[in-house]
Amino acid sequence: MRLDEAGETITPDTKRRCSLERVTIIGLGLIGTSIGLALKDSGILRAEIVGHDLEPSHENKAKKMGAVDKTTHNLIDAVENSRLIILATPVMAIKETLELIAPHLAPGSVVTDTGSTKAQVIEWAEMLLANGKTSCNFIGGHPMAGKEKPGPDNADADMFRGATYAVCPAPSSNEESAQAVVTMIEAIGGIPYFIDPSEHDSYVAAVSHLPFILSTALVGATTQSLGWREMSRLTGTGFRDISRLASGDPIMHRDICVTNVEPIVHWINEFLRELVDLRDSLQESHDSVELKLIKAWEARARWLAGRDSGERPGAELPKASDSMMNLMMGEKLAGRFKTLSESPKGDPTKYRKR
Amino acid sequence: MRLDEAGETITPDTKRRCSLERVTIIGLGLIGTSIGLALKDSGILRAEIVGHDLEPSHENKAKKMGAVDKTTHNLIDAVENSRLIILATPVMAIKETLELIAPHLAPGSVVTDTGSTKAQVIEWAEMLLANGKTSCNFIGGHPMAGKEKPGPDNADADMFRGATYAVCPAPSSNEESAQAVVTMIEAIGGIPYFIDPSEHDSYVAAVSHLPFILSTALVGATTQSLGWREMSRLTGTGFRDISRLASGDPIMHRDICVTNVEPIVHWINEFLRELVDLRDSLQESHDSVELKLIKAWEARARWLAGRDSGERPGAELPKASDSMMNLMMGEKLAGRFKTLSESPKGDPTKYRKR
Repeated sequence: MRLDEAGETITPDTKRRCSLERVTIIGLGLIGTSIGLALKDSGILRAEIVGHDLEPSHENKAKKMGAVDKTTHNLIDAVENSRLIILATPVMAIKETLELIAPHLAPGSVVTDTGSTKAQVIEWAEMLLANGKTSCNFIGGHPMAGKEKPGPDNADADMFRGATYAVCPAPSSNEESAQAVVTMIEAIGGIPYFIDPSEHDSYVAAVSHLPFILSTALVGATTQSLGWREMSRLTGTGFRDISRLASGDPIMHRDICVTNVEPIVHWINEFLRELVDLRDSLQESHDSVELKLIKAWEARARWLAGRDSGERPGAELPKASDSMMNLMMGEKLAGRFKTLSESPKGDPTKYRKR
Repeated sequence: MRLDEAGETITPDTKRRCSLERVTIIGLGLIGTSIGLALKDSGILRAEIVGHDLEPSHENKAKKMGAVDKTTHNLIDAVENSRLIILATPVMAIKETLELIAPHLAPGSVVTDTGSTKAQVIEWAEMLLANGKTSCNFIGGHPMAGKEKPGPDNADADMFRGATYAVCPAPSSNEESAQAVVTMIEAIGGIPYFIDPSEHDSYVAAVSHLPFILSTALVGATTQSLGWREMSRLTGTGFRDISRLASGDPIMHRDICVTNVEPIVHWINEFLRELVDLRDSLQESHDSVELKLIKAWEARARWLAGRDSGERPGAELPKASDSMMNLMMGEKLAGRFKTLSESPKGDPTKYRKR
């Protein structure tokens, strides 16, 4: 990652140059339209936002909602003279879009994307933009926000507020470009998080892609079974939640899968190991099942605690006496956890059983 | 399942006798307290509700909330002269409770439970209640409703409204007992669904227990990995939803696991097959991954459609032109589905790609 190519450090003057003049959003679905709305709300813009989408209805909707100032159905027109181009298309559309816009980018313009995988996208960008013809810079981006209902109709100006927004500068990009994207992210309320593209892809494979794969496999295993008609009578909130991601856009999910095969396969295998272990415990030892259930309960409590308090997740679990913990977990479980954390060796099997 | 042992059919007179006189709720957690609140709201009661819990604080809270008229910390006192005894404890506490109350049940009283597994519970009930000493009847029950936050604080009078409520009469129970439980279920807004205990256990293993097992395994696989601290920065709504059930009461989940081992192991194996298949597709064929994602998307759309329209789930998917479908799925996906369902062989890979 080279952020110092331009050989300059960030000064008030650089910062001023990083404020957003003309901005283009390509792809006016859920994310693109939400970025437009959030940028408008931010008051950071000196000039207009231009929008483009393959679907004219999306262009019209985004304009009507005030997410963009104007739209053009000509991709080349959309990027000309733009300071910042935001690609909010499915991952697989990014390569073709970069090919088409590369020759028409203004000198000094910055290109960013919102795709769910980063290594492949950065490779395309380096290949297509950093060929010396123009001085374009590509800064990969990935907001950790979204909904399973797609389209501009579901856009929300507050979607990125407080959300981690991964930033992966391409190797040949300069610091000023990264600063422009950081300015945009902060303007829409996101929290920029610089990360290596391969690390990013492995981590999101675990916490984002594996979940939708599990959701898809659960729906497959149940709905294809002979008893599904009767079984579906007994579905409740548990099935609803764990199957929810299977209702995400299948094309978006396919693009994620095919651009992140290796990390996803790695994490499926990690999960398989864990599930087989849990299955074997179930047949062998009730105590061992209980221990695994308690460990997972604790781990998620720690995650929630770090998350809800706005602190770095993975932080120490707050003491059970904290009112937040009581509120969040219910007094009884908090009490259990207290007993657990106070037991001599912290052995979770030691708390009182009914 | 013998509902005709008493040799009577349901007449207006039988129904009258089924209305609820004195009711006892044992276990004043989330479910027990919610049943009390819902029964109070129903106006069906002729007399009082007596509550009992091992935790005095739960008893006090349930009384304060108006879920029960009075409480007693003596289990035997709680069931004496009661017409209907509702056991809303964790599954593993049911056996001991039945042992303790069996000699003290009034003639003609009916016992029901709310446990998540039924075959084991019915076996205990037959063994402990149907020994000729009293004429007790056991009707297993399982409301398909709940929250992951436990305790009376989270109780809700509307929790059962519109929810399927599985009913599994013990083999030696009579029709009048079943009618008493049906009356109670309808009073709290549930939809009684008579089902064989083994079938029940297999189906809920698939749609309720497998989901919390997956949730637990996901939390295990991710939070125990070396990269978790960094990874957790990238967690979003997907991880939150798919991990949610791991925050359910570990003791309730343990009890479910140990009383339903065989069906859960069966469904874990079904899931493993599906997941391995999905993993292999990922490495072999992008088209095949896409097809699986679309199939799962469709299957969940059908499930949601049946569910949200109040019809039997698994019903035909409404035409894409239906406004409900558009509202529910977003116009773009509804359009895709339309194209798909109109393609010559219904080949889901044929719709337009970007």
